[in-house]
Amino acid sequence: MPPKRRLSASSHGELALLRQIRERAAYSAKGSVRLGIGDDCALLHLRPGEELAVTTDLSIAGRHFRLDWHQPESIGHRALARGLSDLAAMGARPVAAFLSIGLPRELIASSNRRRPWIQGFLDGLLALARTHQTPLAGGDLSESPLPIADIVLTGAVPSGKALLRSKAKAGHLLYVTGKLGGAAAGLARLGELARSTKMGHPPRIPAALAAEFAYHLYPQPRIAQGLFLRRHGIASAAIDLSDGLSTDLAHICEESGAAAEIDETLLPIHAGANLTMALHGGEDYELLFTAPAAVRMPRKIAGVPITCIGRMVKARAGTPAVTLLTPEGPRPLKSQGWQHFS
Amino acid sequence: MPPKRRLSASSHGELALLRQIRERAAYSAKGSVRLGIGDDCALLHLRPGEELAVTTDLSIAGRHFRLDWHQPESIGHRALARGLSDLAAMGARPVAAFLSIGLPRELIASSNRRRPWIQGFLDGLLALARTHQTPLAGGDLSESPLPIADIVLTGAVPSGKALLRSKAKAGHLLYVTGKLGGAAAGLARLGELARSTKMGHPPRIPAALAAEFAYHLYPQPRIAQGLFLRRHGIASAAIDLSDGLSTDLAHICEESGAAAEIDETLLPIHAGANLTMALHGGEDYELLFTAPAAVRMPRKIAGVPITCIGRMVKARAGTPAVTLLTPEGPRPLKSQGWQHFS
Repeated sequence: MPPKRRLSASSHGELALLRQIRERAAYSAKGSVRLGIGDDCALLHLRPGEELAVTTDLSIAGRHFRLDWHQPESIGHRALARGLSDLAAMGARPVAAFLSIGLPRELIASSNRRRPWIQGFLDGLLALARTHQTPLAGGDLSESPLPIADIVLTGAVPSGKALLRSKAKAGHLLYVTGKLGGAAAGLARLGELARSTKMGHPPRIPAALAAEFAYHLYPQPRIAQGLFLRRHGIASAAIDLSDGLSTDLAHICEESGAAAEIDETLLPIHAGANLTMALHGGEDYELLFTAPAAVRMPRKIAGVPITCIGRMVKARAGTPAVTLLTPEGPRPLKSQGWQHFS
Repeated sequence: MPPKRRLSASSHGELALLRQIRERAAYSAKGSVRLGIGDDCALLHLRPGEELAVTTDLSIAGRHFRLDWHQPESIGHRALARGLSDLAAMGARPVAAFLSIGLPRELIASSNRRRPWIQGFLDGLLALARTHQTPLAGGDLSESPLPIADIVLTGAVPSGKALLRSKAKAGHLLYVTGKLGGAAAGLARLGELARSTKMGHPPRIPAALAAEFAYHLYPQPRIAQGLFLRRHGIASAAIDLSDGLSTDLAHICEESGAAAEIDETLLPIHAGANLTMALHGGEDYELLFTAPAAVRMPRKIAGVPITCIGRMVKARAGTPAVTLLTPEGPRPLKSQGWQHFS
């Protein structure tokens, strides 16, 4: 569009990049992807009795990542993790990913024999895709003055069996997978490190400290846990903790027409994190789910601890949807995470 | 992300916008969308024996549209038209659309009682969605200093019956729907008008001239024509003319392992357009397709003229994939449109 700037193979090597992406993506083509990159659309095949789950997540430089804080591998990993985490929250198995990416020319092109930035981004994205057997089946590539990536995840779930936000009932218990606040704590540490080095490019994380940053840089979507909950029919409602416990729990309350109480003393707070990070930090990509009190919940699912943090109660007009029970007594818990539509 | 800027309902009204989008999108919920906006994923249902077609298309300010040239309604229409056109090229029926949109705060928020820009964008997008019975089933919304929109279209097609780029064979005839170059001609006229007014916002198009601009501002994806070709089994290969005839025909040649000859004198050039616009302009969103010579092709499909413009021939090493036959003799036709991966 005006002025139309063309990505032509002869002048800039982008066509070669597109071929390369196609080759790199093809590694994992499997039964569900009938046709991948290279036509007007990809074609996906579901098993009989399945329906398709679809989610899209935008990642924008300066808002969801920073080129001077994050290695491209982490940015690629986190972009895909956001979408996989949405599938996990539905109890869906991943089918295929799609990537629409807009980048400045210098992040696409090779220069001075240095590997282009986009290759590191794809390294991170495709490594996580391999872990979850999720082929990259298509997308779009454009020059853009601002780096942005929209990731689309498709998944499959038996018809009528998806875990929804809307099926929690008063009396059901509230659970989370893993620990809370680890991503916010890692982000805070990363910010300190980046500011102290002031190099204008992502700081190297010392190997001895890698675990402290891992929850932020390489979050693990809880696909196996979501599949377990759905297959065993033990969760009544579920959501992933992308926006923060206070916000995501409010979504469950709103969609289910119920309220919730969580007990501060029960929260599994990540080492290095504080209560505020656990309540509002977001980007933990753990699952928050409900189950009837009669369900005998495993202590761990696929190696990840499960913690009961409270219960659903009846909604009452004029009272807050989420109450935090503290040693000093109950207090209303306002949503302080992200708001978006999904 | 750092600094995390929250879209909160109390301070800026974005939550209200999200509710509004959900309400506006709900009008069209139909059988194929089991669950729309409001959960971690949307859920789509296919009929037995169908497979799913998926395509994503990025629209970036300054590259695919200009805020000072295009009304928001046209930008929304064109974003959706790109995706619908990809479905048309597969012979798929639209199932659902998803919109990931990043906008500066001033385009999201209401100010001085003026309707926010995003509402005009949604007007254009949802009007075209209604025409093609395509519900908006989900997406993502974020603040972004640069306006960007990624549109995801899902469609359904009987398994194994999609129109592909790869099935053209030497001897098959080449056809296009409609006229070529109209979008490029409209864009050129729009640029003249915008530069002559110099107002910094999109010029009003006089009603008497609307038709001259329509191919650029409100292109019509050829869904009905794609469905006709697929249902009657008369096209061997198809692609939509988004990048320009020279580029899109080269894609068919490459994927099919064949070459092509087109006859300059047969091209249905749009009124006001020239040969260069018809060959390389792009964004016409007409269909380019092939069919065996024995097929009796209708003159019109669903009211749109069909024109034979050439034929597929055998690929020969060392010769160009696409040859333009002119009154002065044949000449190689280089791709001069857009390159991207899809």
